[in-house]
Amino acid sequence: MAFRKIINDPVYGFITINDPVIYRIISHAWFQRLRRINQMAMSYLVYPGAVHSRLHHALGAYHLMHNAIYELRNKGIEITNEEEQAAKIAILLHDIGHGPFSHALESMLVKDLEHETLSVMIMNELNQEMEGQLSMAINVFKNTYPKKFLHQLVSGQLDVDRMDYLTRDSFFSGVIEGMIGYDRIIKMLTVHEGELVVEEKGIYSIEEFLVSRRLMYWQVYQHKTVLSAEMTLIKILERAKWIYKKNPDSIDAGERLNKLLFKDIASPERIHIELFCELDDSDIINAIKSWKGHTDRVISTLCKALLNRKLLKLRLQSQPIQESEIKTKRENVSAQLDISMDDASYLVFNGEAENNLYDPNNESINILFKDGKVRDISQVDSPLIHQNLSGPVKKFYICFYQ
Amino acid sequence: MAFRKIINDPVYGFITINDPVIYRIISHAWFQRLRRINQMAMSYLVYPGAVHSRLHHALGAYHLMHNAIYELRNKGIEITNEEEQAAKIAILLHDIGHGPFSHALESMLVKDLEHETLSVMIMNELNQEMEGQLSMAINVFKNTYPKKFLHQLVSGQLDVDRMDYLTRDSFFSGVIEGMIGYDRIIKMLTVHEGELVVEEKGIYSIEEFLVSRRLMYWQVYQHKTVLSAEMTLIKILERAKWIYKKNPDSIDAGERLNKLLFKDIASPERIHIELFCELDDSDIINAIKSWKGHTDRVISTLCKALLNRKLLKLRLQSQPIQESEIKTKRENVSAQLDISMDDASYLVFNGEAENNLYDPNNESINILFKDGKVRDISQVDSPLIHQNLSGPVKKFYICFYQ
Amino acid sequence: MAFRKIINDPVYGFITINDPVIYRIISHAWFQRLRRINQMAMSYLVYPGAVHSRLHHALGAYHLMHNAIYELRNKGIEITNEEEQAAKIAILLHDIGHGPFSHALESMLVKDLEHETLSVMIMNELNQEMEGQLSMAINVFKNTYPKKFLHQLVSGQLDVDRMDYLTRDSFFSGVIEGMIGYDRIIKMLTVHEGELVVEEKGIYSIEEFLVSRRLMYWQVYQHKTVLSAEMTLIKILERAKWIYKKNPDSIDAGERLNKLLFKDIASPERIHIELFCELDDSDIINAIKSWKGHTDRVISTLCKALLNRKLLKLRLQSQPIQESEIKTKRENVSAQLDISMDDASYLVFNGEAENNLYDPNNESINILFKDGKVRDISQVDSPLIHQNLSGPVKKFYICFYQ
Amino acid sequence: MAFRKIINDPVYGFITINDPVIYRIISHAWFQRLRRINQMAMSYLVYPGAVHSRLHHALGAYHLMHNAIYELRNKGIEITNEEEQAAKIAILLHDIGHGPFSHALESMLVKDLEHETLSVMIMNELNQEMEGQLSMAINVFKNTYPKKFLHQLVSGQLDVDRMDYLTRDSFFSGVIEGMIGYDRIIKMLTVHEGELVVEEKGIYSIEEFLVSRRLMYWQVYQHKTVLSAEMTLIKILERAKWIYKKNPDSIDAGERLNKLLFKDIASPERIHIELFCELDDSDIINAIKSWKGHTDRVISTLCKALLNRKLLKLRLQSQPIQESEIKTKRENVSAQLDISMDDASYLVFNGEAENNLYDPNNESINILFKDGKVRDISQVDSPLIHQNLSGPVKKFYICFYQ
Repeated sequence: MAFRKIINDPVYGFITINDPVIYRIISHAWFQRLRRINQMAMSYLVYPGAVHSRLHHALGAYHLMHNAIYELRNKGIEITNEEEQAAKIAILLHDIGHGPFSHALESMLVKDLEHETLSVMIMNELNQEMEGQLSMAINVFKNTYPKKFLHQLVSGQLDVDRMDYLTRDSFFSGVIEGMIGYDRIIKMLTVHEGELVVEEKGIYSIEEFLVSRRLMYWQVYQHKTVLSAEMTLIKILERAKWIYKKNPDSIDAGERLNKLLFKDIASPERIHIELFCELDDSDIINAIKSWKGHTDRVISTLCKALLNRKLLKLRLQSQPIQESEIKTKRENVSAQLDISMDDASYLVFNGEAENNLYDPNNESINILFKDGKVRDISQVDSPLIHQNLSGPVKKFYICFYQ
Repeated sequence: MAFRKIINDPVYGFITINDPVIYRIISHAWFQRLRRINQMAMSYLVYPGAVHSRLHHALGAYHLMHNAIYELRNKGIEITNEEEQAAKIAILLHDIGHGPFSHALESMLVKDLEHETLSVMIMNELNQEMEGQLSMAINVFKNTYPKKFLHQLVSGQLDVDRMDYLTRDSFFSGVIEGMIGYDRIIKMLTVHEGELVVEEKGIYSIEEFLVSRRLMYWQVYQHKTVLSAEMTLIKILERAKWIYKKNPDSIDAGERLNKLLFKDIASPERIHIELFCELDDSDIINAIKSWKGHTDRVISTLCKALLNRKLLKLRLQSQPIQESEIKTKRENVSAQLDISMDDASYLVFNGEAENNLYDPNNESINILFKDGKVRDISQVDSPLIHQNLSGPVKKFYICFYQ
Repeated sequence: MAFRKIINDPVYGFITINDPVIYRIISHAWFQRLRRINQMAMSYLVYPGAVHSRLHHALGAYHLMHNAIYELRNKGIEITNEEEQAAKIAILLHDIGHGPFSHALESMLVKDLEHETLSVMIMNELNQEMEGQLSMAINVFKNTYPKKFLHQLVSGQLDVDRMDYLTRDSFFSGVIEGMIGYDRIIKMLTVHEGELVVEEKGIYSIEEFLVSRRLMYWQVYQHKTVLSAEMTLIKILERAKWIYKKNPDSIDAGERLNKLLFKDIASPERIHIELFCELDDSDIINAIKSWKGHTDRVISTLCKALLNRKLLKLRLQSQPIQESEIKTKRENVSAQLDISMDDASYLVFNGEAENNLYDPNNESINILFKDGKVRDISQVDSPLIHQNLSGPVKKFYICFYQ
Repeated sequence: MAFRKIINDPVYGFITINDPVIYRIISHAWFQRLRRINQMAMSYLVYPGAVHSRLHHALGAYHLMHNAIYELRNKGIEITNEEEQAAKIAILLHDIGHGPFSHALESMLVKDLEHETLSVMIMNELNQEMEGQLSMAINVFKNTYPKKFLHQLVSGQLDVDRMDYLTRDSFFSGVIEGMIGYDRIIKMLTVHEGELVVEEKGIYSIEEFLVSRRLMYWQVYQHKTVLSAEMTLIKILERAKWIYKKNPDSIDAGERLNKLLFKDIASPERIHIELFCELDDSDIINAIKSWKGHTDRVISTLCKALLNRKLLKLRLQSQPIQESEIKTKRENVSAQLDISMDDASYLVFNGEAENNLYDPNNESINILFKDGKVRDISQVDSPLIHQNLSGPVKKFYICFYQ
């Protein structure tokens, strides 16, 4: 009997794995590690249901890739079995380079390396281990494979990654108005001159996709409380590094985190990938639980705020934060906790939140019109898909202890 | 034990009726008639699940009214029990004046009377029968009751009518991307100086509501096949009237429809309301089934098109239809079916489809900002709620037999 | 580009038609007629959402057939493209012989002919029209095709018909606890020695399927109010026939119904199939609307009861109804309405409601155990799949006007 | 404006907190800790969506308590505002005594103390801190409050705890056939002579509830892979204790776990509650991650099995496992890993899985019949609610490394 595993998924019903190579990848310890990384980082502090893992998202995106390939083939697009396998592997591993708390900590643990670069490094390792079975997948991922549309399904303005995370995140958070019509969008996809395009009648679904994404950005991903928690997490790690620099013996981040957090390991060598792949959310949580009793008042305050959900206040506004307000608030905290103004800057800080809904300079969404012509969606006569929508929207925030 | 009836609803779970006066209205033959009127007229020819009744929608809107009143009271807004009952009755009966196939046939059966006017006439009748128990409800419906927000909940840019029909129509049609966050919107409602307003943090939900509504308009309500079917229905009735005028004995619309369709009864007198309230979708379907064997080739062709879903083609475009195209197509049909050019105009015709997403001149959506000020949503700095969006969007269509 | 139509379905998302032969069948007037027949007859008087059509159910069962074939092929079961088409056509047309209000009126309109026999007659007609393209489908339907499992998918204890109607009926009625795990059951199906069997690990899903079915029977299909309405419908038609026999000129059932209801047409000839296929729910509703003003007090009373939902009371019990109670109640009605005792028997009557959950004598559910042996589920050591469960459960009812 | 917080929940839509006392409890660090305890322990290794927290379950059960109280009051049952608050607090805190991985580790960390006893201890602490505001809640929880039905809502055969966990667990795991009709069950609850009873017409829902629970037990909670993972977790901790006893310096469980795991702290004193409330899943995960590199081959093997999901095989059967099989398998492992037979007993072991679906000796489900009498559901004439169903069902398992 043919190889077949089925996995229950509350979002799509069932996910089927029917390729032993893919099952081997899923079974790999590095992929299983994604079970212990929360897809939505700190969002669960506002949306208690948002606790799904990055492994679950990867499986979901794999499922949508399966559907997309099925639909494209039905439309007469040629996709070989090897290409199908490659596209599926590429999407399964597209986030394998994520560390604990996903995007929230990206820059803290591995300097100057984006998670995509790390993903490629890890894929290369796996490829060696699996004797080249991932070579085509890596080409698809890096967009060096001739059939561009395969890469665009993995990473583009309308890839299965986005379709899954928007669907999954809105499902688990319970923000049902963020639900997109992923099923219809996939049915509207086709290939024109080697590029992924959307059939004209899918325009309303694309509009709705863009608006749902916008809603998810501001209502969920950049919700002020979520933002406060994620910035607090960063401040905790920054402070930990600061403490370590001052006195290495006075702080312990645990067996695994010690190496990555304090030793600034970033060169793309073999040993570090293994180290990196040992880490997950639990290392960070454990360190924070230990530091909440630390003698440094700044780090203990921040850790308690996060663990007990007594978070710093955060205010979003369309104008930049005034320096005077920051200064006053720091003075207050400095007095209140009896700490220096420098220390207070960990407890009162400002920044920018940005939502780049649709960037035509980057990857575009191409629409195939009934007249056979392809135009970018930004040229469609739609008030929703207006240049205002496309441009980045920036907000300013101040985050402060009180 | 207190009076209580519960009704299963796939959309909201359960709807509770706990007021004998309201139960008496629901039990009235005129309300029960709404079971036999399809909420979405001919949409089920494209979306086979879209077969829910107008009664179901009325109960759903009643349920949302219940929730809205509960939330407003929790926020300290005073609503007496009598006002609660009045608002609930007003929303239950807001569509009682609808005839067969709802909006599709509105102008055909009762000339110069909008369904809202008919609703009031029927409410007045019921009020007499129920010894004045509907008086306050009628005032709320007609906006002559002092607390304006009650009327705005029944009929406004953000009323429970719209919230229910968008939710219910997207649910039954299976167009899940049309789903709105009705629950969140209701929780964001409040009252400011007697008017219904939305709290600032509800803005994303309102945006999403407007976009979903737009999507439902073009993808469902004005879908070209739905439009073709509904225009065909109108043409059938026009042709039936035309045949009747030429030779009254040559056409029969059935016991009940004969009176309303051929006798042009429209004056607001007692007898006609009873007559009107006898009609439902089945009368129209029966007439069409009889006429499909009529000797008049025009009406038989149209009736077969509708019953057997061999519909006239319809093309939507942003430019007006050229007269020359209409003429050519009529000539073709005239030759093909051996009918006159006048007759051919029932089988080839053009028109406009319009979607007035948000009309600031009419009723507006007022947002209550955190600074305590109220502004219309059109003044919010949002690309989505842009003037382009607010203006009516018009499309032109040609519908033709081939 | 390959032929492809997609249909939105709130239950399964999308249903795809990718075979022009199947699309031709769906487009046939006789199939389109199923749009105008309510799948759940009078259940919508209790569950207002239960208004889905028999066409929708047929499409849903077709979709599950598609899934089942896909899964079986993945397990190495050979199914040719022609067999796939045949199985899909058979399931699409399995209920084509249903008349208005489905089961409720089965015996009233076409005497001595079960809807399955009518289905075959209609399929044969269609087969002639389509030049033999349905021959294999008819063999599958009649179980004369060698691969028995194809017939078992269409009609057996665990066929896609039941899986769809339980799923769809629970979805539209909002009785979510009736939901079955159709998706998992389909994944557990396989073929053993030419027969459809269920893999051992699917036992819990089968148990749940049987229990959900039981729940749907008593809570929905045989709900006392639904039963009252459906019996009233039958009594109306019986009374109409009685009136017609006494005085043919005194009653009119409308153009189409007149022929079938009063002329007792039942022989399986060409002309009658066409006649039969003209009928749908609207004919019955129209007759009832006309008869509610009839001078015969019995029929007018019954028609008003149904239309205005002032239904006869119905009581279910495990013991037979006492003759004395029936007599007393008839005397009361006879006096109240000034009608004869014979007439009163239309307004006070009794009967039996039966639920044959699982009949091992008929078709059985075979389980394929890990040891390679097949046993009927009734032999599984499960308290739920106990002989008590398998036997028919009978209840007695009295239905009476008051 | 009144106090009000709303929380998104994918299961129920929104959960509302409108009592500052309850909000204070939810905000307490001890309650927030439940965010870091997985409700379904290791089930997510089979059902990747099953990652919801114990905090989420507590909030969900609180929501159902709110609904139940609302329904009971509507039926005329008197419940004071103080009692409402007490019942809500009792259900919020009913699982506050759970440690990491919930039931899976219950006996490992705190000897001889069931989580309910710990819950009371923690409630008492909180009560002191909150100056007696929890006194009535504690009485309800301990069943020392006169209105028994309040306790039965918190803890009984049909309490809101079970209703929420069955609903929530089936939702997140995606096992939709485990879905119960919680909404209908709550509407069928009433109070008779101070005890919680179910109205007769709710019997089918209760049957379905019992069957769904059974399905969830065997298909999810006691799924062989889940069982294997949870037993492995226990074996890991047992082995860790064994290592510690032999040589305390050779093993480190981390700052917090060291104290509870190795020091056998169990006396109900203040200090230990604080210690206990510091623990969550991340401590266990961290210890396991460290031990996977331990020199003890047994513990490192078990830890790798769990982390990388290369789990021990597990076989369930209705007969006890033969001693000879256990011995043979241990010999194999002993040879394979070069360990003693004693050591092998951590890698090959047997046990029993039990599902006590409905224990009439314990708490019973009482049905209020229309004749006004109350009977236990076991006396209802239902094959489903048969004594077979009520008795415990025991299965035997062997779990082994290979």
